[in-house]
Amino acid sequence: MKIGKYSFEEFKERAAAFHGYPSPGLLAGGYMVEAARARLSEGTLFEAIVETPKCLPDAVQLLTVCSIGNQRLKVINLGRYALILFDKTTGIGYRAFLDLDKLDRWPHIKGWFMKLIEKERQDPERLLAEIKEAGNSICTVNRVRVASGFIGRSHMSKIARCPICREAYPAEDGPFCLGCKGEAPYEISNDSPAG
Amino acid sequence: MKIGKYSFEEFKERAAAFHGYPSPGLLAGGYMVEAARARLSEGTLFEAIVETPKCLPDAVQLLTVCSIGNQRLKVINLGRYALILFDKTTGIGYRAFLDLDKLDRWPHIKGWFMKLIEKERQDPERLLAEIKEAGNSICTVNRVRVASGFIGRSHMSKIARCPICREAYPAEDGPFCLGCKGEAPYEISNDSPAG
Repeated sequence: MKIGKYSFEEFKERAAAFHGYPSPGLLAGGYMVEAARARLSEGTLFEAIVETPKCLPDAVQLLTVCSIGNQRLKVINLGRYALILFDKTTGIGYRAFLDLDKLDRWPHIKGWFMKLIEKERQDPERLLAEIKEAGNSICTVNRVRVASGFIGRSHMSKIARCPICREAYPAEDGPFCLGCKGEAPYEISNDSPAG
Repeated sequence: MKIGKYSFEEFKERAAAFHGYPSPGLLAGGYMVEAARARLSEGTLFEAIVETPKCLPDAVQLLTVCSIGNQRLKVINLGRYALILFDKTTGIGYRAFLDLDKLDRWPHIKGWFMKLIEKERQDPERLLAEIKEAGNSICTVNRVRVASGFIGRSHMSKIARCPICREAYPAEDGPFCLGCKGEAPYEISNDSPAG
């Protein structure tokens, strides 16, 4: 079964190049993305929400134009292996999740997904073979309506210069930037000019 | 000036394919990623933090193996156009930011970055030409030490089945999943089988 316009092997190669290795979650995720997309009307301008930061965001980024950097993909960590593709004007869309009720036929997928088999004892070849054979038959798709906060563009704030770090930041964040409010998780240890 | 192994034009094409269009932030970001990477010793296994969700995460994802889905890229929104690449075992790394003090020679870059020029009145061709010519000369790189919470792998939780939605979730999230605790920003409106 193809993953969008790619054969399983082609998608596996793209997954390895982008993600570092062809993770089971990314390969199964490819089928999930396409299962959700297949429900949208042709030509729908859609955005995406993914409910876990693990692997699945990369399936969306590889198969659709929704990315973290263009802000058409949001990660909301609910700990579930699920994604939503939704019409960005109406909020109506489709949620695909990996369905435990459909895993009994696939012991390697179930063992990996539920962490029943330790990583060292997994058989990656048989696991990937099961993912390829199962295709989208292990996911379930539901129609959803996304909350209004996700519909439409966020407004653009004016840009100010932070009086502390001297960098640019959104003026709406206050008199100085969030980094200088103590939210930066690092210490700057010295200066070294670029270029 | 090249962006890693790509010419400016090659990177522009890759940016358009991944991000939907070759945004100025993504192109300038490409030079920033490479300016930070150039400071790391050859062969360093590194991870990334980006301080804005806008455009810059995609520069990291296009030029390094750090991605949202493999969790080697984290977005911590501090509202600043800055990224850090750091050694994942020591937390020592380099932070590149777009430096306002270096923009006076580049009126189109400054106008875009500080939102001094409305989007409709920007001249995209001259803006991109400035970005190409400026290369990494508009960013400054500092050495940083990332907080210990970002070093090393997060542990793997056991997987449980949520008694409400019946989906898999990390057992450490509690007796039921975060989605069923009311954090899901959507309503499920009906079922429709996949496949």
